[in-house]
Amino acid sequence: ALFGQIKTVTLIPGDGIGPEISTAVMKIFEAAKAPIQWEERNVTAIKGPGGRWMIPPEAKESMDKNKIGLKGPLKTPIAAGHPSMNLLLRKTFDLYANVRPCVSIEGYKTPYTDVDLVTIRENTEGEYSGIEHLIVDGVVQSIKLITGEASRRIAEYAFEYARNNQRASVTAVHKANIMRMSDGLFLRKCREVAENYKDVKFTEMYLDTVCLNMVQDPSQFDVLVMPNLYGDILSDLCAGLIGGLGVTPSGNIGANGVAIFESVHGTAPDIAGKDLANPTALLLSAVMMLRHMGLHGYANKIETACFDTIREKKVLTKDLGGNSKCSEFTADICRRVQDMD
Amino acid sequence: ALFGQIKTVTLIPGDGIGPEISTAVMKIFEAAKAPIQWEERNVTAIKGPGGRWMIPPEAKESMDKNKIGLKGPLKTPIAAGHPSMNLLLRKTFDLYANVRPCVSIEGYKTPYTDVDLVTIRENTEGEYSGIEHLIVDGVVQSIKLITGEASRRIAEYAFEYARNNQRASVTAVHKANIMRMSDGLFLRKCREVAENYKDVKFTEMYLDTVCLNMVQDPSQFDVLVMPNLYGDILSDLCAGLIGGLGVTPSGNIGANGVAIFESVHGTAPDIAGKDLANPTALLLSAVMMLRHMGLHGYANKIETACFDTIREKKVLTKDLGGNSKCSEFTADICRRVQDMD
Ligand SMILES: CC(C)[C@H](C(=O)O)[C@@H](O)C(=O)O
Ligand SMILES: CC(C)[C@H](C(=O)O)[C@@H](O)C(=O)O
Repeated sequence: ALFGQIKTVTLIPGDGIGPEISTAVMKIFEAAKAPIQWEERNVTAIKGPGGRWMIPPEAKESMDKNKIGLKGPLKTPIAAGHPSMNLLLRKTFDLYANVRPCVSIEGYKTPYTDVDLVTIRENTEGEYSGIEHLIVDGVVQSIKLITGEASRRIAEYAFEYARNNQRASVTAVHKANIMRMSDGLFLRKCREVAENYKDVKFTEMYLDTVCLNMVQDPSQFDVLVMPNLYGDILSDLCAGLIGGLGVTPSGNIGANGVAIFESVHGTAPDIAGKDLANPTALLLSAVMMLRHMGLHGYANKIETACFDTIREKKVLTKDLGGNSKCSEFTADICRRVQDMD
Repeated sequence: ALFGQIKTVTLIPGDGIGPEISTAVMKIFEAAKAPIQWEERNVTAIKGPGGRWMIPPEAKESMDKNKIGLKGPLKTPIAAGHPSMNLLLRKTFDLYANVRPCVSIEGYKTPYTDVDLVTIRENTEGEYSGIEHLIVDGVVQSIKLITGEASRRIAEYAFEYARNNQRASVTAVHKANIMRMSDGLFLRKCREVAENYKDVKFTEMYLDTVCLNMVQDPSQFDVLVMPNLYGDILSDLCAGLIGGLGVTPSGNIGANGVAIFESVHGTAPDIAGKDLANPTALLLSAVMMLRHMGLHGYANKIETACFDTIREKKVLTKDLGGNSKCSEFTADICRRVQDMD
């Protein structure tokens, strides 16, 4: 980004604690003088022409224009037939890669201290095709759809990611011993793409074996690439290793720079509006966003401040083991960011 | 079982380290004077009439007669189109419930000390239907098949298991937010069955949430019941929590008492024939088998001896952190079993 140029980002604060943690992020960005201007939009599913669910036009237009979004948690719709808003957003903007770095946080105690990996999940097809049939009463089939194109695309994303982020290896996670054709196709594409990235080590591993090895020694893993459902499972597992969804960032990446970064925890309605929420996951997602935009200096500054606050253990929200309010935690990070200047 | 009555069990020693660890189990059973007689059978897939893969008739007849089997690891066939022997056995005898207790082992250090849960996996359908299609070039679908009958059957098994093993709760693991019809049907059957077991607490949880919570605090889980693939994943994850497949027993249970108990680790060809293998997983599977046969006294005696040997840390195989041979580890357990008389 050019010096002094201000970029507009679509902000979807979300439900429950969403607005509070969004405010926290905005405050910290302001303290860091990050050249970001926010365009706030609400997202609730609405019924469009032909009865199809869609996101509100104002949100769609904002994203189409800005290309980059930051999103808090959205409540899960309970109406029957109503789609998950997260899935609808991924679909609307063809955000085909879900990227979740999992890195152990110094000072935040978990059974593991040396996690440093990234899960890269195919975000558009697989078990999430939404195609299901009732064959006869009591017999249902769900269709897992795998295409060579989406598999190649996500494999390429993973290898590019590894190369650009100085990561040594990519592991394809699969069950091609069981789903020989679908996971077989996915795996074949990974192998083909690997041929073009001789500088990155490529390995393959069964999903069950990955899970077992992961809880025994996560430090052996680096970049992991996998079909949709396996990514859903493995990214949560890995989040658990470093402290849970409250501290884990996530990015949904599409073509031509389009991307939405989001905290993947829930809306926590029980503590909403009480200034008790932990904004870390959304903040670290916003840090990922800054890196995606090439704003590495601001990203590093904010990330360092956040980790320093956590490591010092003086001003922590309740879920992180402290007694401080969201606003106090935020202020501590702001102070550090300002001190860096 | 009546006092003095000797029961015949089909023993499938398996490949690689299979024969060594089978010998270890037989020696320990002999030392414990367990009233079991072994009928050894080899299992390799053969092509039957019409080109269908089947297990050898001698193995099939032995299992049909004895109903109960103990099985070491079988090597994965590499020929194209060749089925996994494990899957073929489950199918041949309609072993619909895969049961894997995961209990922390005293003295065997892992990041977790208080794991005490059981995964119960539907073993016949789901993602393992084997039905896949090439739609057009580069587009493949795999079919996940869920039936009300198989779902009800496994749910009933789980609740019966909980009741008979003094376990307080059953958790159904699913992704019915995504696979609304298939996992929805599975979940509905679990709910229906739960109505008949008011003495057992019933909860539901998303698979991704289970994985996250599992690595954060496995002690919150008790009996978990789930479709085929989720069981494959979760049982390996849980095995990882207590030390891996080398120490985890497994049982595949069918109707009318038919069952095959097996170690789920590999054949370890690198150490095969060198008297270095760890027989614990097969031994604990054999202990599960004894309980299945109502031989609780023998089961407890052998299990106690095995855990005592591990806790004492004097005679351990290499993978358990020691320097002893398989035969020495076995002899130590035999001695303890004999000392209990
Ligand atoms: C909310 C849910 C639909 C979603 C998923 O299953 O993908 C979530 O678990 C995630 O990982 O983003
Ligand atoms: C060997 C393989 C086919 C099998 C499975 O996927 O079920 C294994 O992982 C298991 O858990 O028994």
